[in-house]
Amino acid sequence: MRRLGWGLIDVEGARLSWVAHGVIEPATDADLSVRLLELFDRLSDVIAEWTPDEAAIEEVFVNVNPASTLKLGHARAAAMLAPAKAGMLVAEYAALDIKKSVVGAGRADKDQVLFMVKRLLPKADPKMKADAADALACAITHAHKRKMASLKRSVA
Amino acid sequence: MRRLGWGLIDVEGARLSWVAHGVIEPATDADLSVRLLELFDRLSDVIAEWTPDEAAIEEVFVNVNPASTLKLGHARAAAMLAPAKAGMLVAEYAALDIKKSVVGAGRADKDQVLFMVKRLLPKADPKMKADAADALACAITHAHKRKMASLKRSVA
Repeated sequence: MRRLGWGLIDVEGARLSWVAHGVIEPATDADLSVRLLELFDRLSDVIAEWTPDEAAIEEVFVNVNPASTLKLGHARAAAMLAPAKAGMLVAEYAALDIKKSVVGAGRADKDQVLFMVKRLLPKADPKMKADAADALACAITHAHKRKMASLKRSVA
Repeated sequence: MRRLGWGLIDVEGARLSWVAHGVIEPATDADLSVRLLELFDRLSDVIAEWTPDEAAIEEVFVNVNPASTLKLGHARAAAMLAPAKAGMLVAEYAALDIKKSVVGAGRADKDQVLFMVKRLLPKADPKMKADAADALACAITHAHKRKMASLKRSVA
């Protein structure tokens, strides 16, 4: 993973609003441990700055290339450890569920996700990168799923 | 990765001696982020207790099963981040090089590695688990490679 997108939203009942987003790109020429530490530290800085209450990450589609899959696993663990170290559980959502939740169709492409993220979060910079839009889409999905889970609890 | 073996040795010139070893086994029923945090925290405790100067990890043999490879990548990143966070660079050695360095043959099996680790580090508990022996073998390899690198530097 060369780039890690992150996104923060505020949730008040059914109302979602954009807070911040960004993309972390560790130096590609450094040792693996140094790159992982950079991911972890920079994401920890984001968490320290905004103090979110909950965290979610996309479940990855395992690549047919084992070396790429291993690299993705490395980066993903660094990305999960930052919120875990800050005391958060990290929810995981499949890409299919994120697309369904944000666009309404599991087969949506990147442009459709970006379009819907901009509609759902009108304050977000419309020039955001796809990685940041994907991260915001994951946050939106988490907000939806949490709401459904709490509705189920209140009905039960 | 269900188990993470670790091993510490002391290096004085060509003299290697056993310091400590262990195996970390995170609870398998917890969420991924919780398991990764447990690996990271427990390895960080080991580092805080013994304050090693250098760290090394085995390069992994990427599995044909993509899901297993992803899991291995997750655990491996947590294991690299603990020493990286403590300020160490983490050297990586291929399993082949570790076997060559410890046993003298790249095709050595686990029992041969265990046998040689016990011979090279006679103070180590002979009942150690294979994962801990592998970690000590990686530490021995790092000591050998460092020495060769420093000899090369002194000749250059």
